[in-house]
Amino acid sequence: MKKIINKPTDVVSELLRGMEKAYPSLKYIEKLEVITRREKSDKVAVISGGGAGHEPAHAGYVGKGMLDAAISGNVFSSPSPDRIIEGINQTNSGKGVLMIIKNYSGDIMNFGLSKDMAEMDDIEVETVVVKDDVAVPDSTYSTGRRGIAGTVFVHKIAGAKAETGANLQEVKAAAEKAIANIRSMGMAMTPCTLPAVGKPGFVLGEDEIEIGMGIHGEPGVERTNVKTAKELAEILLNKVLEDYDYSNSEVALMVNGLGGTPLMELYILNNEVQQLLEEKNIKVYRTFVGNYMTALDMTGCSLTLMKLDDELKELLDAPCDTPALKVL
Amino acid sequence: MKKIINKPTDVVSELLRGMEKAYPSLKYIEKLEVITRREKSDKVAVISGGGAGHEPAHAGYVGKGMLDAAISGNVFSSPSPDRIIEGINQTNSGKGVLMIIKNYSGDIMNFGLSKDMAEMDDIEVETVVVKDDVAVPDSTYSTGRRGIAGTVFVHKIAGAKAETGANLQEVKAAAEKAIANIRSMGMAMTPCTLPAVGKPGFVLGEDEIEIGMGIHGEPGVERTNVKTAKELAEILLNKVLEDYDYSNSEVALMVNGLGGTPLMELYILNNEVQQLLEEKNIKVYRTFVGNYMTALDMTGCSLTLMKLDDELKELLDAPCDTPALKVL
Repeated sequence: MKKIINKPTDVVSELLRGMEKAYPSLKYIEKLEVITRREKSDKVAVISGGGAGHEPAHAGYVGKGMLDAAISGNVFSSPSPDRIIEGINQTNSGKGVLMIIKNYSGDIMNFGLSKDMAEMDDIEVETVVVKDDVAVPDSTYSTGRRGIAGTVFVHKIAGAKAETGANLQEVKAAAEKAIANIRSMGMAMTPCTLPAVGKPGFVLGEDEIEIGMGIHGEPGVERTNVKTAKELAEILLNKVLEDYDYSNSEVALMVNGLGGTPLMELYILNNEVQQLLEEKNIKVYRTFVGNYMTALDMTGCSLTLMKLDDELKELLDAPCDTPALKVL
Repeated sequence: MKKIINKPTDVVSELLRGMEKAYPSLKYIEKLEVITRREKSDKVAVISGGGAGHEPAHAGYVGKGMLDAAISGNVFSSPSPDRIIEGINQTNSGKGVLMIIKNYSGDIMNFGLSKDMAEMDDIEVETVVVKDDVAVPDSTYSTGRRGIAGTVFVHKIAGAKAETGANLQEVKAAAEKAIANIRSMGMAMTPCTLPAVGKPGFVLGEDEIEIGMGIHGEPGVERTNVKTAKELAEILLNKVLEDYDYSNSEVALMVNGLGGTPLMELYILNNEVQQLLEEKNIKVYRTFVGNYMTALDMTGCSLTLMKLDDELKELLDAPCDTPALKVL
């Protein structure tokens, strides 16, 4: 295994410490693997988290205009409730906490338990669950659709709403509106290697890709031969458009890499996706191209669309300043 | 070869078109492979360029506070003078043009010819050459040291200086000051594959890495076995510190990935580098972690230090808004 790591068991704590050292606005809470903003703010707190291995998610989205804290589990493994409770306690200003959860069974259970425990301490907690991946109806670690890169849009929208001074129900409603309008679809070209395992979790042939694979290597819908960028754009986008009617609307577009895919390829894919959207009379209001929600060193990509109304546009455009996403 | 591309001969034009479509502030000039800001500004122009395959360099650094234009060659191949002349003509407001060149023979020749041609048209052009890579004294495509990720710092410093309304000589002096204070050192874990070739340009064994490899796969100083993040930080940093005295100073630090390396590993490396710098009493003023200057899908990394004085700090902190680097 070729990775820039020390002991596989230390990757999470070391990566989070490395983030804290890179970004003075972040505070790392040792052992509990929580990253918060260094300056606590007097508003509804928006927090998220999940297994590690999806960097920059979620800690990279902690900062003004997005998250108040990110809670990390081990690699591809949900954070335990004690960690989540710490995230809640660190960020609750008395105005309540919204937790943005990706739809994986472990996360649903642990964030749910944490909500119950916090409520026993009279902390108001609400949750929203992101299920943007249209690939499969159920999956290895999820009942219902998986949550993938669209989660970053939910962070942005909920975070921006919270900064306006909105109350917990209003912030939740904005997050729910985003979620209702977001769909994603991805594919993988090469597998990822968990540090603690040391070898790829599955095998793809030299000329083989998997459409609809999950961000933990969960099975997709089809193994097929290598496609051109144009073909990939069509396959992924059509699956999204079959699921939700984006016609004649304005959208935010995310062309996301899975960690091992360089920007050159994501830009080329974006070129194809934008042409297709134009042909279909779907107007792209804002585009995000980069490695936003990854799967360790997996190569591949996902496309995410979020249909926008005036409120979502305003929240998307609101300034944010986080390590991994800045809007000026 | 698994890449998200169409025809290998089209990768450069398609990636640049994909960037223009993602970022409305950028303008793409077809066939000449030039990206400029959409709004021309009345100041000294700062431009750069070189072979493609180093995305987001250089087009990702076009925008307020950094470059006015980036000129792209084919993959790993210098842009021809007609392209560079177009970049000069598109950006010159009458106050002259600074060209930031990485030290590769092709770039030195083509940017040099372009300078001569522009001067015949009475356009004032100055050049600076970045040679930050301390790995080897001469290399496959360079006489003298290679220019690598430190070039991004030079874009930032020169771009910020130009925004102040400084004249061409002042902007050049700021760039030269940055260059004099920058050193970099990298290593590769896996090779990169040129789209037009379809297979890796060299082979590294399963447990083998190459210290000091160039961003086009040029030979480094040593092939060795896989190292821990801590060992790598020591090897790369010591080579930089042997070359230039950063002791008791403040620095900007870049922990750069080569395209295929995920952020998790760069954050872990950053954690080690910052600890070493602290032990050596070198204060990190600002840290940049990410894939800033890449080599297609190569996995590996580089470290860059820039020693700062008050002027360089101010220029580093000045706001910039480009696709690949934003300072608020």
